[in-house]
Amino acid sequence: MEHKKTAKRLRCIVKLGGAAITCKNKLETIDEENLKEVSSQIRQAFVSDSTSANVLGMDWSKRPGQSEAPSFVNDFGDQPVADSESYIVVHGAGSFGHFQASKSGVHKGGLSRPLVKAGFVATRISVTSLNLEIVRSLAREGIPSIGMSPFSCGWSTCQRNMTEADISMVIKAIDAGFIPVLHGDAVLDTLQECTILSGDVIIRHLAAELKPEFVVFLTDVLGVFDRPPVEPDAVLIREIAVREDGSWSVVKPKLEDTSKPVEFTVAAHDTTGGMVTKITEAAMIAKLGIDVYITKAGTDHSVKALSGFLKGGIPDDWLGTAIRYMS
Amino acid sequence: MEHKKTAKRLRCIVKLGGAAITCKNKLETIDEENLKEVSSQIRQAFVSDSTSANVLGMDWSKRPGQSEAPSFVNDFGDQPVADSESYIVVHGAGSFGHFQASKSGVHKGGLSRPLVKAGFVATRISVTSLNLEIVRSLAREGIPSIGMSPFSCGWSTCQRNMTEADISMVIKAIDAGFIPVLHGDAVLDTLQECTILSGDVIIRHLAAELKPEFVVFLTDVLGVFDRPPVEPDAVLIREIAVREDGSWSVVKPKLEDTSKPVEFTVAAHDTTGGMVTKITEAAMIAKLGIDVYITKAGTDHSVKALSGFLKGGIPDDWLGTAIRYMS
Repeated sequence: MEHKKTAKRLRCIVKLGGAAITCKNKLETIDEENLKEVSSQIRQAFVSDSTSANVLGMDWSKRPGQSEAPSFVNDFGDQPVADSESYIVVHGAGSFGHFQASKSGVHKGGLSRPLVKAGFVATRISVTSLNLEIVRSLAREGIPSIGMSPFSCGWSTCQRNMTEADISMVIKAIDAGFIPVLHGDAVLDTLQECTILSGDVIIRHLAAELKPEFVVFLTDVLGVFDRPPVEPDAVLIREIAVREDGSWSVVKPKLEDTSKPVEFTVAAHDTTGGMVTKITEAAMIAKLGIDVYITKAGTDHSVKALSGFLKGGIPDDWLGTAIRYMS
Repeated sequence: MEHKKTAKRLRCIVKLGGAAITCKNKLETIDEENLKEVSSQIRQAFVSDSTSANVLGMDWSKRPGQSEAPSFVNDFGDQPVADSESYIVVHGAGSFGHFQASKSGVHKGGLSRPLVKAGFVATRISVTSLNLEIVRSLAREGIPSIGMSPFSCGWSTCQRNMTEADISMVIKAIDAGFIPVLHGDAVLDTLQECTILSGDVIIRHLAAELKPEFVVFLTDVLGVFDRPPVEPDAVLIREIAVREDGSWSVVKPKLEDTSKPVEFTVAAHDTTGGMVTKITEAAMIAKLGIDVYITKAGTDHSVKALSGFLKGGIPDDWLGTAIRYMS
């Protein structure tokens, strides 16, 4: 179909993990410092003249305690818009949405039950308020970010599998020079009436349709570990190879006891799937020949991952998990 | 096309005028009291058992100054969802969005100019933040409201005329029992790259496609006057008749000096079109056989308009402007 391609090749899809940008144990609380750092790193990675100190903010909203719009609004000249690579941001929910969704069981469906219906509305309010704050944070860094809710885009599922997902509007937004910011959302399901569509499933779908050069998952730990990362002997998995049939194996480091099954885990607050789901989703992306990097948000390692530097090879001092196709 | 109809006939489209729900001279400030009253009136008009004092709120977000979700979340029983008429809410921008849009000239297009591009992003941030607050206000009244942005829905214009506006998602939301809440938005334009799509144009399109029984415009004055309503002799136009060719004339009250052209006006803060635009839009709706009522938000008159009571005839004590087709 002709509209399935963007005019420029998509450089990257960035996942902002809910655990990386929200305070996971505090209801509906953004980790402002992390979010600001992540937004700044995203700008530096994708905007060509981002060495310029003159970032022109695109969030002109009233700031708390002020009654006027910010004064920099008068600083826009008539220079052309800075050249930017095209990319998409998808974020999880963290401490937004999960309470509402799990309290009501939105993922299990059944909109005729008042609790589910109210939970659907409450979940959307919570996740769209997080989306708005992320869009604002990116816009303050001069990134032309545009919030797009999967529900409003008309995306829906059938028995929790993504079926309808017209991405033509995402493509139009990219071609117009904007950065779409999508999120995990409550959506309609043709079989069970409603469910939760996770950010990771959205990314897999977008990756399959738009074939970005690479995908970066930014989370609150360094990557995938062989056991819970709080345990003293936890080993960071550095590289996973994915074969043509979708199966995958750890290639680096060489794990000593290969007879014992590895308990993959991260400390992420994520009711839509644990680490095995994450690796499985990542493996499905890697199978398409798209490198996937999982690393900690706001570090030198995330800077390297976002910049595309890792495409040439993974240096030994890079800490994170690379999931790549190996023919 | 089969998807152009909702399962139940749409009862009403409600326009919340920006001037009625925001403080028009204070940047990005909601008129909380008015918005709460309007939300409550909307619930009473459309939910069948709304005499019940037991309204179960659907906004489960953390309240300011609290760290927990509201406790009523535990009060949802397993009784079926209250029967509600189907309707759509569309709101204007008021003191949200207008500053950003007019400062940058988004309506004139030209996304390659940094000011326009930034203004587009800033406008969407501002109007979507208002949309979120309106959705929350309606949800607190137990209305299953769902925010849907025209941009995300994929709606666009060509030379500022609405061209692409797939309403299938609006229909699906209604059929699932939700109340879509749409808003004036910055959208892409195939000829001039971008523009502003006003709430009134959205309503005309939805009315033409979905044929509601009636349309209510809630504003900050009683209706359409023959001159600025602050003038002492301003006369409220009570009824306008629309003929088949779209032309319209005042039928009540009989204006004394018919030789002098009437200066229609309201004190609305509205850069997307003044009162003549509003009457022209309303006349195009009325031409389809759909009654249009313009009245002041939060009054007994708006209660009557929302309830459908005026369909039987306009009582003398109703203050507002009715715009109706007269064959």
